[in-house]
Amino acid sequence: MSEYKVPLDDIHFISHEWLNLPQHYQQLDKGDVADKETLSTIFEEAAKFSESVIAPTYETGDTQGCHWEDGIVSTPTGFKDAYQQYIENGWPTLSAAPEFGGQGFPYSVGLIVSEMIGSANLAWSMYPGLTQGAIEALESHGTAEQQALYLNPMIAGTWSGTMCLTEPHCGSDLGLLRTKAVPNDNGTYLISGTKIFISAGEHDLTDNIIHLVLARLPDAPQGTKGISLFIVPKFLVNNDGTLSDRNTVNCASIEHKMGLNGSATCVMNFDEATGFLLGEANRGLQCMFTMMNAARLGTAMQGICLTQISYQKSLAYARDRLQMRSLSGPKHPEKAADPIIVHPDVRRMLLTQKALVEGNRALAYYVATLVDKTRLSQSDEEKAYAELLLGFLTPICKGFMTETALETTSHGLQVFGGHGYIKEYGAEQIVRDARITTIYEGTTGIQALDLLGRKTLLNNGQALKLHISNIMAFIETNKDKTQLLPYMERLGGLLKKWGDITAAIGQKAMSNQDEVGAASVDYLMYSGYVTLAYIWLEQGAAALNQGELADTFYESKLQTMAFYFDKILPRAKALELTMLSGCNSLSAFKDTHF
Amino acid sequence: MSEYKVPLDDIHFISHEWLNLPQHYQQLDKGDVADKETLSTIFEEAAKFSESVIAPTYETGDTQGCHWEDGIVSTPTGFKDAYQQYIENGWPTLSAAPEFGGQGFPYSVGLIVSEMIGSANLAWSMYPGLTQGAIEALESHGTAEQQALYLNPMIAGTWSGTMCLTEPHCGSDLGLLRTKAVPNDNGTYLISGTKIFISAGEHDLTDNIIHLVLARLPDAPQGTKGISLFIVPKFLVNNDGTLSDRNTVNCASIEHKMGLNGSATCVMNFDEATGFLLGEANRGLQCMFTMMNAARLGTAMQGICLTQISYQKSLAYARDRLQMRSLSGPKHPEKAADPIIVHPDVRRMLLTQKALVEGNRALAYYVATLVDKTRLSQSDEEKAYAELLLGFLTPICKGFMTETALETTSHGLQVFGGHGYIKEYGAEQIVRDARITTIYEGTTGIQALDLLGRKTLLNNGQALKLHISNIMAFIETNKDKTQLLPYMERLGGLLKKWGDITAAIGQKAMSNQDEVGAASVDYLMYSGYVTLAYIWLEQGAAALNQGELADTFYESKLQTMAFYFDKILPRAKALELTMLSGCNSLSAFKDTHF
Repeated sequence: MSEYKVPLDDIHFISHEWLNLPQHYQQLDKGDVADKETLSTIFEEAAKFSESVIAPTYETGDTQGCHWEDGIVSTPTGFKDAYQQYIENGWPTLSAAPEFGGQGFPYSVGLIVSEMIGSANLAWSMYPGLTQGAIEALESHGTAEQQALYLNPMIAGTWSGTMCLTEPHCGSDLGLLRTKAVPNDNGTYLISGTKIFISAGEHDLTDNIIHLVLARLPDAPQGTKGISLFIVPKFLVNNDGTLSDRNTVNCASIEHKMGLNGSATCVMNFDEATGFLLGEANRGLQCMFTMMNAARLGTAMQGICLTQISYQKSLAYARDRLQMRSLSGPKHPEKAADPIIVHPDVRRMLLTQKALVEGNRALAYYVATLVDKTRLSQSDEEKAYAELLLGFLTPICKGFMTETALETTSHGLQVFGGHGYIKEYGAEQIVRDARITTIYEGTTGIQALDLLGRKTLLNNGQALKLHISNIMAFIETNKDKTQLLPYMERLGGLLKKWGDITAAIGQKAMSNQDEVGAASVDYLMYSGYVTLAYIWLEQGAAALNQGELADTFYESKLQTMAFYFDKILPRAKALELTMLSGCNSLSAFKDTHF
Repeated sequence: MSEYKVPLDDIHFISHEWLNLPQHYQQLDKGDVADKETLSTIFEEAAKFSESVIAPTYETGDTQGCHWEDGIVSTPTGFKDAYQQYIENGWPTLSAAPEFGGQGFPYSVGLIVSEMIGSANLAWSMYPGLTQGAIEALESHGTAEQQALYLNPMIAGTWSGTMCLTEPHCGSDLGLLRTKAVPNDNGTYLISGTKIFISAGEHDLTDNIIHLVLARLPDAPQGTKGISLFIVPKFLVNNDGTLSDRNTVNCASIEHKMGLNGSATCVMNFDEATGFLLGEANRGLQCMFTMMNAARLGTAMQGICLTQISYQKSLAYARDRLQMRSLSGPKHPEKAADPIIVHPDVRRMLLTQKALVEGNRALAYYVATLVDKTRLSQSDEEKAYAELLLGFLTPICKGFMTETALETTSHGLQVFGGHGYIKEYGAEQIVRDARITTIYEGTTGIQALDLLGRKTLLNNGQALKLHISNIMAFIETNKDKTQLLPYMERLGGLLKKWGDITAAIGQKAMSNQDEVGAASVDYLMYSGYVTLAYIWLEQGAAALNQGELADTFYESKLQTMAFYFDKILPRAKALELTMLSGCNSLSAFKDTHF
């Protein structure tokens, strides 16, 4: 099968030639750490590591899966060895705080590297990925003592972390949560309850696992306002950092899933396990929310990872597989038939993958620079600006990049024809792995309500207006690029519509809140298509500047932009129509009508 | 998990209240066999059989899959017993010719029953399904001797059949086929070659397996004009119908697939196996084509089967799962939360499933009446009419119903949230099973070229004009139904566009044939959406007549129609735009640009 190759040219183009990351880091006082040369070295080394150490575990991870026996979970062959090399090479410390052993690179550097690792083996990347969320929670909300005790080994990667939210009867609705936390006299708590769908809940890669667990105190208010966050280590930790007693948290079983088999999805039983309050009592959800943007952007990246490997695989197959002649005359008369890449419909599928992966990648990196600003900017104004925009773009990224990943990976399988359905060709694994991404870290429906409700209508479209004015400013600045003008005009029209549609839904929602839910997913996808059109124009403008790459690279960028506008962007028109049709045809349905 | 229940009300509505099948059969001189009462009895009995005998094999079929050992293939537990009951109850003989032991019901009756069986367990239904194709080939092209030898046991179901087309290097492009047929002195042939993706190529359900194999005679012309069709029985058959020697055709292995695990997908080696020419030499492809419409319609039905079970499962879950309150106020204040069916976006997913499955079912049954006419009509004119329309609608059905099945089954999984990704809930199996349907029996790309190229542009849009004029006539006749008028107007606009788009593509194609391939899949989907809008109006009109079912049934039909027009049909607008954008953005890409 084709091997994963990191798209270093595209990463170079987006991070250097479009976003000019070194300059961006300089503005955030990180210029000395993250200069151009260092960045290029990191990307090249990460590429080598991902291709040679992580990627070889990809197929085995799926075919073997994880195994559970008596509460012990074994990861597939090769996972542990790859993990060992991962920590020996210091990769987990890349974007972590220097005071706890980190290398102090900005968030965006870590995100770019995480794309490579996730593309090489998404299931494997879940183990360090989940730890990242726990680290951020500890950094933001832990006491100095807690940070001193847990952060160094977690950042080094010798311990891992989890986020224990979901219970059998509550997923999206955490207000229904039942896990209990009973205070002991010594300031600790006894945690009891069952958590499900806990990624990396138990495994054999690290010496200890630090669970962050949502639970209710005895006197807690009902609903989401009575939830607290607790640190529950698998092994309790002595003050000197050595491991002490095994805590009473156990993995009761692992799920058998459609895909992502190398990632252990655990049922965790907490049986009066010792826990430590993290942050304030009853403010557990707020603690979770502070790391939500990053976690959701991480899941958005997973959509990019899977689209990338699907595109590479299907492209290689389309160049190799000979089947029928081009309708416009043989293109390779010396062969028994033409390679299927000559057929327009095969090209359409490949270019849909390409346009979406490169567009989504550029958007994700751009959004990562906003995360950098929220964390590193010295200016309160810039911080507020970045936070506003980040809050708006995050649900778009999570929803749009994972929904489009379902489409692109399915195209990838289709290009393979019957062989796409056979396990050994690998195209179907990508489809199976992708299918969870629109669900976890908040379903597309949840993202869409967050976007249209909380991030748009409830703040009077402030973030939307800012985003649109940024785009208008870009158009204004680039008016001299005549090649882009027709595309800018189309985008301009859509921006106007975006505002109109938002106002129309807001108007209707005043008399019926269900209008929001009825339009929300279409609104999210519309926002994604229009935002990606802008991102493609940014890339087009950057391509016209002709940087350090080969000419064909820039030609390809401009043509992919044209393809995006011709063959993908028109979907916005259908979404406009479905959104404006309102919620009547949904709410008229009585229960007996289904 | 929820059990499969045959949607008998909907089947009754479409077959009796809309299509009036008994009258249709009467016009084809089958009124005595297939009267209203008999039909109802058949449907009820088939429902009972599907629900109680076939459906229980569904999950095991997936988890166990088929097993290969030394050329012998075992089907999953329960498959053989269910098959035994299937033939004991005479189901395979339903639509077969009375002169070979069949019951003589028209094709459409068999198709409706096949929906029930396919919904109960699609993988299981592949065994009798493939036999059906082989029976039709023998009926159409076999000599009297061949028919006498093979048809009775195949129709009775004690023998099964296969279609051996694909080879490792040739799928869509059968012109590349290499399997050889060398004539013996006694009129038989020695068949040598390897066939892949042979469904039901080897299994333990029947005493014999009759392979129909495409191969080349020594002096055959190159390409598709040099392919002949051969009968290659697993066990050779004596003149008295008893089994003789084991033939040298063997199953080398079975594929490990994404889904449809209960269906054995075999690599078949023919090692100088004895074969018998079926039909004329070098006319093998034509023989295959005569049964193509029925086989493709059968695959289209598979899309319906999977959408149906996905809808049933997700509906049951959405009614049961409590999560969050309705945005427009609690709907079930006595419960801890509202069932998720109250949330507009969940309703949108459920109604998308419902609108597509009921629309596609009605369209498929209508097309099945065209098949009946091509086979049974006494009038040459009516036959020609039905053939023209059938040829046009078949690729639409195959492409559209399977592509939409990918969407609907994915919605079904999404409704389950995280549980949808877990095997034990069953939602993900449906997604996996569905993924092959857009590939086998001709990919969507192949269907689309057939539709836009051969069935539309090459015959000057004759079939399209006929189809549109039928729809216009329907609109004209139903102008008095004021409730339907706004929908009819929208459909009228789309019909006009359909013609314009076809003309525009035809015009461009004159200078560049690639314009056909660039637009074809969008054209197929456009044709599907517009045709389904017509079919929904037909159902709306029939619902207004208020037949024998409960009032809520007819209300639901009208509301589902409204939902279809509001939330699904607007996609046609996006497709119009992408089609008209032409093939420039596809063909401008050089190989180095990917």
